[in-house]
Amino acid sequence: MQGALPPSSVGELGERRIIDLVRSRLTHPPTWVKLGIGDDAAVIEPERNHLEVLTTDALVEGVHFDRRFMPADAIGHRALAVNLSDLAAMGATPRAMLLSLALPDSLPVADLEAFLDGLFSLAGRFRIVLVGGNVSRSPGPVVIDITASGSVKPRKLLSRSGARPGDEVYVSGTVGAAAAGLEQLRASSDGTALCESCVSRFLRPEPRIRLGMLLGRNRAASAAIDLSDGLADAVHQLAAASGAGISLEADAIPVEPEARRWFEARGVDPLTAAMTGGDDYELLVTVPRRRHRAFGAVQKLAGSLLLTRIGVVTSGREVVMQRGGREEEVPAGFSHFG
Amino acid sequence: MQGALPPSSVGELGERRIIDLVRSRLTHPPTWVKLGIGDDAAVIEPERNHLEVLTTDALVEGVHFDRRFMPADAIGHRALAVNLSDLAAMGATPRAMLLSLALPDSLPVADLEAFLDGLFSLAGRFRIVLVGGNVSRSPGPVVIDITASGSVKPRKLLSRSGARPGDEVYVSGTVGAAAAGLEQLRASSDGTALCESCVSRFLRPEPRIRLGMLLGRNRAASAAIDLSDGLADAVHQLAAASGAGISLEADAIPVEPEARRWFEARGVDPLTAAMTGGDDYELLVTVPRRRHRAFGAVQKLAGSLLLTRIGVVTSGREVVMQRGGREEEVPAGFSHFG
Repeated sequence: MQGALPPSSVGELGERRIIDLVRSRLTHPPTWVKLGIGDDAAVIEPERNHLEVLTTDALVEGVHFDRRFMPADAIGHRALAVNLSDLAAMGATPRAMLLSLALPDSLPVADLEAFLDGLFSLAGRFRIVLVGGNVSRSPGPVVIDITASGSVKPRKLLSRSGARPGDEVYVSGTVGAAAAGLEQLRASSDGTALCESCVSRFLRPEPRIRLGMLLGRNRAASAAIDLSDGLADAVHQLAAASGAGISLEADAIPVEPEARRWFEARGVDPLTAAMTGGDDYELLVTVPRRRHRAFGAVQKLAGSLLLTRIGVVTSGREVVMQRGGREEEVPAGFSHFG
Repeated sequence: MQGALPPSSVGELGERRIIDLVRSRLTHPPTWVKLGIGDDAAVIEPERNHLEVLTTDALVEGVHFDRRFMPADAIGHRALAVNLSDLAAMGATPRAMLLSLALPDSLPVADLEAFLDGLFSLAGRFRIVLVGGNVSRSPGPVVIDITASGSVKPRKLLSRSGARPGDEVYVSGTVGAAAAGLEQLRASSDGTALCESCVSRFLRPEPRIRLGMLLGRNRAASAAIDLSDGLADAVHQLAAASGAGISLEADAIPVEPEARRWFEARGVDPLTAAMTGGDDYELLVTVPRRRHRAFGAVQKLAGSLLLTRIGVVTSGREVVMQRGGREEEVPAGFSHFG
């Protein structure tokens, strides 16, 4: 139709043209992709002598994100970042992803484009190839489901279950920034950001892919897990999977300074807030004493990324924290359900 | 709490106990599963000298299914069947799946259990192992996203793009039953089923895994595609991917007899209804003349599964149908979007 306005919502756009928007962002595939988007399924060649690492994580509008205060490109970034963080915790190198989208008819095409820009920008940085997916209509929220695939040599694989009593416990980066950032976004409808770095840490979490690979390659860690549901939850999960306990030092936990000030100003205990808040995509790792030198090499290679010793693995099953001369229980985690 | 009622909705159940319900259905994993559910990601060992085939397909409540007239176990069956059908069209042997669920708080626990029963019953028949997934709350519809992984030897891979002029076009089973079944379910709120076999074909589609593997192993097909969006759509897609045309014989198309009667009684052209209705999970395959004998062997091995010659690949780009002495265009397919 001559003179017709371009479609402004995905409902007007339709499935084929949505897929075209995705395809237009694809780059030339590597040789290990035998068949990408366009057949009944994707076909890839596994890396020789490697294991395949697979993970899937969904973002549901109204549960994991809110379009009212999260820019669409940040949602795209996050949808992939949460999956890459899982691969990082295994020491895997990311390779491929599949994208499943359920979209309400009313979603603006501009939002879909910004979403794809955020997603493909992060994918490009880690050379992840989109090999398949599907698009359907949603009668309710936007639902984004990504499956990511990576590869790792068997001896370089990290898992949650290898921690042994005496191993030291480390965390990468700082914690609490994302939780403070989320609260700020929720609170300040006027756009006032009191901790800009917190907001940006919440909006664009950085998956620790390189750190995971360095730990695996140097065989520097006995166990690893990502902090998707917060530090407290991660410590509990890693301890349980390893059949061990963990004792943390409260003073050692690297709470993001700006987040600490933000929580203190609101009369909230910064440490509790930082430990139970989700959305930090740092890694929690345990390091056997005999791998201390290898871990030192990883620390050097990690450059500006902080790796802080926050505790030790114990032979009990308790997860505790030393704070102000007393031992206290570590609060339980955080759930996206119920 | 003593005397408390067991949770009746998934909102009361919570994430951990939902995951427990899933885990309780897992069987002992094969040796190629190095890490299953419970770590940050799953780890599997690729099959040596095989390619990996990956597909993802989502079912969205209100778009792909309606809980008012579809039993929960049929929804579980379908969620996996649609993915297995994609693997079948590649000639792949299914191996692993990841399950991503977004569930409204109000969903009855009994429905979740029946859903899982339907899903795991089909998975068990094809020895597919659930290796990972995630569960979250949905503020709207039930959304089920499954990623399935299979493997195939490079020379046994089927794709959409290998059809060449002169190849014969075959379809498995019959078409139209699922479309008639869906219309019956929608129409008869009093539970009267006029074509029971149609309803059951809609509710529990049978993915043609064995046929796909037989075609691949015998190198009997030049191209294959599944009929998820109907025969008309599949013919168009296969022709376009192969850069060829297809000419169908209307009289040869195996419309399910009960569906034919059902559509005729409603004054609807059964052939058009059967070709444009979705949800038939049969395979459309093209067979080069020089592979005729190999295809005959596949027909024997396929046993009671009908394989009907319905047309021929042509050198043009048109997709046409010979009907009553005239050539007509094949109607376009069917979209789950917009």
